[in-house]
Amino acid sequence: MSIYTYISQNNTNPRLTLVGAGPGDPELLTIKGLRAIGSADVIMYDALASEEILEYAKPGVKMIYVGKRLGTYVYKQEEINQLIVEQAFLYGHVVRLKGGDPFVFGRGFEEIEYTRSFGIPCEVVSGVTSSIGVPASIGIPVTSRGFADSFWVLTGTTKAGEVSADLQLAARSNATIVVLMGMSKLAEICELFTLSGKSEIPMAIIQNGTRKNARTVLSTVSEMPEKAKAHQITNPAVIVIGEVVGLHPEFVEAYCDHIGIEST
Amino acid sequence: MSIYTYISQNNTNPRLTLVGAGPGDPELLTIKGLRAIGSADVIMYDALASEEILEYAKPGVKMIYVGKRLGTYVYKQEEINQLIVEQAFLYGHVVRLKGGDPFVFGRGFEEIEYTRSFGIPCEVVSGVTSSIGVPASIGIPVTSRGFADSFWVLTGTTKAGEVSADLQLAARSNATIVVLMGMSKLAEICELFTLSGKSEIPMAIIQNGTRKNARTVLSTVSEMPEKAKAHQITNPAVIVIGEVVGLHPEFVEAYCDHIGIEST
Repeated sequence: MSIYTYISQNNTNPRLTLVGAGPGDPELLTIKGLRAIGSADVIMYDALASEEILEYAKPGVKMIYVGKRLGTYVYKQEEINQLIVEQAFLYGHVVRLKGGDPFVFGRGFEEIEYTRSFGIPCEVVSGVTSSIGVPASIGIPVTSRGFADSFWVLTGTTKAGEVSADLQLAARSNATIVVLMGMSKLAEICELFTLSGKSEIPMAIIQNGTRKNARTVLSTVSEMPEKAKAHQITNPAVIVIGEVVGLHPEFVEAYCDHIGIEST
Repeated sequence: MSIYTYISQNNTNPRLTLVGAGPGDPELLTIKGLRAIGSADVIMYDALASEEILEYAKPGVKMIYVGKRLGTYVYKQEEINQLIVEQAFLYGHVVRLKGGDPFVFGRGFEEIEYTRSFGIPCEVVSGVTSSIGVPASIGIPVTSRGFADSFWVLTGTTKAGEVSADLQLAARSNATIVVLMGMSKLAEICELFTLSGKSEIPMAIIQNGTRKNARTVLSTVSEMPEKAKAHQITNPAVIVIGEVVGLHPEFVEAYCDHIGIEST
């Protein structure tokens, strides 16, 4: 049955709310997000959204996992878009729950655009972005007077699968640089900063930030590829590069580590 | 009585929680922020934090307004820092409530650093940053595939009171550029983008974003200074420059406006 058939057969008051679940800690969900989840008929969620957040839903709500399984996506983006429309026509209020903020690399706009083309009302509930919330959770501010006047959030992998061209410009700026989904390009990112004379700038990688299993590696840009490998830091991780990382109380300790003095 | 005297005389279990209130809509506060406010003995807030949020506090909690009055700051930053420490020693749990996220241009780190130097435990509760939440509230995503791979958040006024040097680099990047507190530098900002050949890039200014009295002006970079003046758009405002602004359903209409066809 095509989605067009649903349009004519159902009378469910379809609507979509795109909700940002925040960086991981379920308490970093907004009150507005909580209300949306509480009134959902269907919840479509992915790996980055904390599973504890699903407990805020009404009993018996239909839950559809649309994230990765064993490293590959279960659904293509086009299939997710169609599923949203189908589920809204079939059941009513669809909440699309995304990790962090739904408009930061989440393809959220594409989902809204597609859904709206069927005349379905859409709302966005912004969330705490991992790009700010994850560094903050270990005490690193993305901006701080005298250290960074701005912050720039980039993705490690662009549509074409290459390192973003803007990363070269980023390496030359005074901004705090935050890279999401960048672990597969870690060596290239560090290389770009080294070429801009920033090999000794402080850098942090935080895996599973704001969650109980969070892990952090602090280092300089030049030493980071090796250190990240040694600590087996993998996705999901937030990469932060800039003088603000040096504000972390353990940075000096971590830095000692890389020159041979093992810290705890 | 000096703050040092409080240390020895009181036994109040002092602590500080820095809470991001979100961009304006009180429902964009996080659950964690709500809990912190509910357990506060003293709340120190400024103009950007929504007053409705103060209603989440326990009855009789001491509220101290530390924002601007008639355009000037009532307290200097150093006085706010000292006040936090004093109040914590006197009353216990101080919640420092800030608009947006506390680590985005909020001088939040300075407050924590000072407070921590007295041995007072500090916690940060991240919030929805206005730089993402305000554009989202009018349907503009800071990133969207094919339109912007990254976003860069800058402040209009730096410590020295000048336009940020990074704004020149920003004008040359493909990032979505978000400028907070930039209205007094609007002409210079538009000039920088025009010099980088971006005079026809879409631009939005949103005043009082996510609040009931929100107002938006959409235009191209070249026409914005005049249009913002005509619409009397002032602070608090979020400036967004980039192709993603063109995704706003009313952008075409607004653009027609500036070439002489008045839109509604």
